[in-house]
Amino acid sequence: MSLGTLVLLRHGESEWNAKNLFTGWVDVDLTAKGEAEARHSGDLLREHGLLPDVVHTSVLRRAIRTAELALNAADRHWIAVRRSWRLNERHYGALQGKNKKQTLEQYGEEQFMLWRRSYDTPPPPIDDNDEWSQAGDPRYGTLPPELMPRTECLKDVLDRALPYWYDGIVPDLLAGRTVLVAAHGNSLRAFVKHLDNVSDEAIAKLNIPTGIPLRYDLDAALRPVTAGGTYLDPTAAEEAAAAVANQGR
Amino acid sequence: MSLGTLVLLRHGESEWNAKNLFTGWVDVDLTAKGEAEARHSGDLLREHGLLPDVVHTSVLRRAIRTAELALNAADRHWIAVRRSWRLNERHYGALQGKNKKQTLEQYGEEQFMLWRRSYDTPPPPIDDNDEWSQAGDPRYGTLPPELMPRTECLKDVLDRALPYWYDGIVPDLLAGRTVLVAAHGNSLRAFVKHLDNVSDEAIAKLNIPTGIPLRYDLDAALRPVTAGGTYLDPTAAEEAAAAVANQGR
Repeated sequence: MSLGTLVLLRHGESEWNAKNLFTGWVDVDLTAKGEAEARHSGDLLREHGLLPDVVHTSVLRRAIRTAELALNAADRHWIAVRRSWRLNERHYGALQGKNKKQTLEQYGEEQFMLWRRSYDTPPPPIDDNDEWSQAGDPRYGTLPPELMPRTECLKDVLDRALPYWYDGIVPDLLAGRTVLVAAHGNSLRAFVKHLDNVSDEAIAKLNIPTGIPLRYDLDAALRPVTAGGTYLDPTAAEEAAAAVANQGR
Repeated sequence: MSLGTLVLLRHGESEWNAKNLFTGWVDVDLTAKGEAEARHSGDLLREHGLLPDVVHTSVLRRAIRTAELALNAADRHWIAVRRSWRLNERHYGALQGKNKKQTLEQYGEEQFMLWRRSYDTPPPPIDDNDEWSQAGDPRYGTLPPELMPRTECLKDVLDRALPYWYDGIVPDLLAGRTVLVAAHGNSLRAFVKHLDNVSDEAIAKLNIPTGIPLRYDLDAALRPVTAGGTYLDPTAAEEAAAAVANQGR
């Protein structure tokens, strides 16, 4: 049995990345720059001969469209598609729709960094009547109320994403497939934390750049052969990760 | 048990529709006009409150991108996706890549119409070394050789599409879902022939326009409540069907 290859891809720039707003589960679109990033990631897949057999996406437009544009560019638009809310971005609670810079000024550096980067401190929950709440969104209509988040910390994301890793993604890897996961900064950080066994403290400083495929070859225990995986464009990944760390400044 | 609703959608104008070439299984893209048609079909779905729960597409780019653009416009980009080669356009054999007008002039009206519209006369098979052959295309890599067509008449399309109707689409309808099928002129004619019990002769004159959703409500025997279904924009459908009938002139 030959184990498949995992490829993680964070969506390109979204309209709210560009506006410096907390997004979470709000279903914003890609910017023109984000679309170009998505196409470029597909070019990288093709150039490296890393051709997905199946793609898993969240149910959010920016990840779905990133997958569509990347796969179209890589001439793999025809592969099998799976979607799950478990791959969604972290739910940002009452911060959804808020400006990052204003939030930093209003609550101060310590509280801001706690919400943004602590492993287990979620922001305040969003009210169901808030204009940026997902209560009543038909795509979550089959979720029982106790599964529908109103805010999440990274630990919460790991708890709800990991079942999908085991049930949705691992079977494809065991079948020898090249598996593309097109998702979000925090759902991908959750997978990286699990795969590389990153500590609760160290994960705070780990940033995943947008639009650069991250390849993981796994051993029989489904652990990385190379810790941290391999970016298809390592130089660009390093530069981009540094930029992400400075968001909200 | 409440039966679901079927929505058939033929892809918008492709690059080779615009150039008047026989396309078949050649994987050409949409034109800008075809993209606009796809978006408009999504607007129609939304305006009529006909919101798909699942989409089935062929493995050809023009149908896949039509589904993506339509669902994005209808805010249903997040629904489940299924793909099958059984929904592909008719394989046009050795005619793939040939100009329709030149073919008409070269072979004459009778032969031309026989290849285009007869129920059971396929064009000559394509050679595996022809530049427009799909031999070796990875998306068909799991098909045993005896399933891989080198030419098809409409009867052949019906024979290979019907198993997918029963195994892929009917279960979704029985589960009460609204099912979008984004496919091609001839794979959709095959389904219409089956659903409406159209004779081998009458199907020759039935043209399905591009980019206008065709709604079928079905009874418990999975037969149409209204024969021929209902186009979401009947006036545009009538005009477009007339134009399709004049192709190659």
